[in-house]
Amino acid sequence: MFSTPSNPESVFTYGAPALKFGSGASAEIGFDLGQYGARHVLVITDPGVAATGAPRRIAEQLSGFGIQASVYEGVRVEPTDESLLAAVEHARAGGPWDAFVAIGGGSSIDTAKAVNLLTTNPGELMDYVNAPVGGGLAPSRPLKPLVAVPTTTGTGSESTTICVLDVLDLKVKTGISHARLRPVLAVVDPDLAMSQPAGVTAAAGMDILCHALESYTARPYTSYERRRPEERVPYCGSNPVADMWSERAIALLARSFRTAVRDGDDAEARGRMALAATFAGLGFGNAGVHIPHANAYPIAGRVRDFHPEGYPAGEPMVPHGMAVALTAPEAFRFTFEALPERHLRAAELLDPSAARPDDLSEYLPGVLTRLMRDIGLPDGIGGVGYTEADVPALAEGAMRQQRLLGTAPRPVTEDDLTKILTRSIALW
Amino acid sequence: MFSTPSNPESVFTYGAPALKFGSGASAEIGFDLGQYGARHVLVITDPGVAATGAPRRIAEQLSGFGIQASVYEGVRVEPTDESLLAAVEHARAGGPWDAFVAIGGGSSIDTAKAVNLLTTNPGELMDYVNAPVGGGLAPSRPLKPLVAVPTTTGTGSESTTICVLDVLDLKVKTGISHARLRPVLAVVDPDLAMSQPAGVTAAAGMDILCHALESYTARPYTSYERRRPEERVPYCGSNPVADMWSERAIALLARSFRTAVRDGDDAEARGRMALAATFAGLGFGNAGVHIPHANAYPIAGRVRDFHPEGYPAGEPMVPHGMAVALTAPEAFRFTFEALPERHLRAAELLDPSAARPDDLSEYLPGVLTRLMRDIGLPDGIGGVGYTEADVPALAEGAMRQQRLLGTAPRPVTEDDLTKILTRSIALW
Repeated sequence: MFSTPSNPESVFTYGAPALKFGSGASAEIGFDLGQYGARHVLVITDPGVAATGAPRRIAEQLSGFGIQASVYEGVRVEPTDESLLAAVEHARAGGPWDAFVAIGGGSSIDTAKAVNLLTTNPGELMDYVNAPVGGGLAPSRPLKPLVAVPTTTGTGSESTTICVLDVLDLKVKTGISHARLRPVLAVVDPDLAMSQPAGVTAAAGMDILCHALESYTARPYTSYERRRPEERVPYCGSNPVADMWSERAIALLARSFRTAVRDGDDAEARGRMALAATFAGLGFGNAGVHIPHANAYPIAGRVRDFHPEGYPAGEPMVPHGMAVALTAPEAFRFTFEALPERHLRAAELLDPSAARPDDLSEYLPGVLTRLMRDIGLPDGIGGVGYTEADVPALAEGAMRQQRLLGTAPRPVTEDDLTKILTRSIALW
Repeated sequence: MFSTPSNPESVFTYGAPALKFGSGASAEIGFDLGQYGARHVLVITDPGVAATGAPRRIAEQLSGFGIQASVYEGVRVEPTDESLLAAVEHARAGGPWDAFVAIGGGSSIDTAKAVNLLTTNPGELMDYVNAPVGGGLAPSRPLKPLVAVPTTTGTGSESTTICVLDVLDLKVKTGISHARLRPVLAVVDPDLAMSQPAGVTAAAGMDILCHALESYTARPYTSYERRRPEERVPYCGSNPVADMWSERAIALLARSFRTAVRDGDDAEARGRMALAATFAGLGFGNAGVHIPHANAYPIAGRVRDFHPEGYPAGEPMVPHGMAVALTAPEAFRFTFEALPERHLRAAELLDPSAARPDDLSEYLPGVLTRLMRDIGLPDGIGGVGYTEADVPALAEGAMRQQRLLGTAPRPVTEDDLTKILTRSIALW
């Protein structure tokens, strides 16, 4: 599917934060920060998570370890350049800080990555945003320790080197990516996600699942031309380490996803979801994601009036995990022929009870669609308000995510995306 | 098997170095050190590895990245307090260093950990050695980046927080263990192990396998009483992350171990062995090892005149992996009843073709013994010169390793060890 490289890549890289996992883990952050010598710490969160009381409680616990903590509650869900700058200005005014603690979903963790970068390195936000949107600069100085405390079981941001943002003037979703942005420690306390509404569990869970499925079906690292060390990127394609995390994450979801959506108080299912989110993050943070994530950018970005259950009322939105999921069945139908064995194995792991259809390319899409229907996701991109008339703009928007599309296991044209999006208008 | 904890542990921790894996990876270390801002670096290795030319070649490559590197070739295989002090004195005289690169087996990597500790922190070696042998002090200051480049596929030292040493005056093998000792980056280049003799591949491979098997059958973290954060240790008992690494390591060995011993030039088998060693290290470095490793201390320490094939002539020795392996079948027969499912699963992963015996406690010992016989290991501790008369001293020596024995899945008395050692005099 890819042309055979003349000098194939033989090296893969793997990086991850240290992990502290389990019920009660978030009560010990003060001790962990003390290990980094931190005395003056900024806690970064969003208003919704702040309202649960967890950030305040964690900040108070820090003082028990002799750490002076201040809480910033101004994170915007789905950060923009403006919201990041506001957070950076707040941090610059109150600093210097010895460390940062991000409490929340991907938005809080990503905001903390930007704050950490811009309070330790010279320059401004757009200097570091991926080219061609921004300057694509790499940080020249070390960052401070960032401890990430995910409260939604989904994003995997605690494991990755990426900060995603909307640049408002350009109406584009893009990111900053560098190994130094990765948190040093992920503290995953399943108790913090117990209050998550069913709709959030469903959307965030699809994000976990797509991280695992896309990493697992990403272009193998050996299919690239050999890179020089300075050309290596955190996303290096599927590889034996990422594969292991992805397989285990899919198997954990198979045993917990429907239960966790149905009964948010099922601690065992919640624990498995939290572990699956962590594992999937540890996988995709090194392999990469592809078509469903590329499509998710315009699907979320061009929303008109969809208001998902379980999310704050107000502005219309397609939650990230939902935006990723809606084209996933059709994306995997398209990628099947590039790596058939991996698609079959993924389907088998996700639903060991499902029968193999005669057309094997239908296996993973079928398993995925049944799951999405069971957990109450919208029926395709039509279910969040898009019609055939929107497809060209969505395809054009997804084509801009070349960094992600380059990780797909076969070349992807705008025409391919148009077909995938059109077939995704209704899924069942 | 253990008494039920009144307040069971609910938290586990996981830490690991970043990884760069693959053929040619060792040529890029200069770039990676540059990422840490290093300009003046000490390369630490032993005379045997130095003779292969790899350390000199790597040091020369560093200069291509603007890094000034000096090579210390004085590492002793099986480090002692004396050999570590010699390395520390050499490093103190030539320093300060921005970073360290250890090239070799566990001895070189462990020596580099001690050098890093004692050139960045106050005090002397015995202050940091585990109590009660030493002062058990924790480092008070950050260490420098240590890049570990394993050349024998076995020890897993590149992933762990431990430095093992013999204290000569006390005739005791002990260690220094702290999270800060862990290398920041493991560079695993399977090409560096291509010259390894069959006897070394066999012994080192048994070390990999026992890391995986002992971690996998270690006391579950939930079986301990809840620890306060300052009481947490790098070895926290078996847990979902360590389990995943261990299972995968065992499966990789099943497909490569016999081949790699038989044909040292089989690059695919070598690659799998290197990956298995890394995976097992990433597992046991967080779960812990137990009876076979405890027994290995006196089995190696009390050697009289055994000279293994493939190792330097001269002093008698029982290589570490061999010392670990010789009592493993009997140790797992003893631990079977504590966690039967895990013992069965491990046997199945290691030899999917083996038939299950009627007495299921024989399954894993049987699979292990057949493997050891096939790859040319000595027939039990009798094969390296011990008789029944030596058993009391060996059992007494193993009893001193309470830190390891405490990780076993059931309580272990001196009488239990005596039985295990006696039954291990001849295995087939």
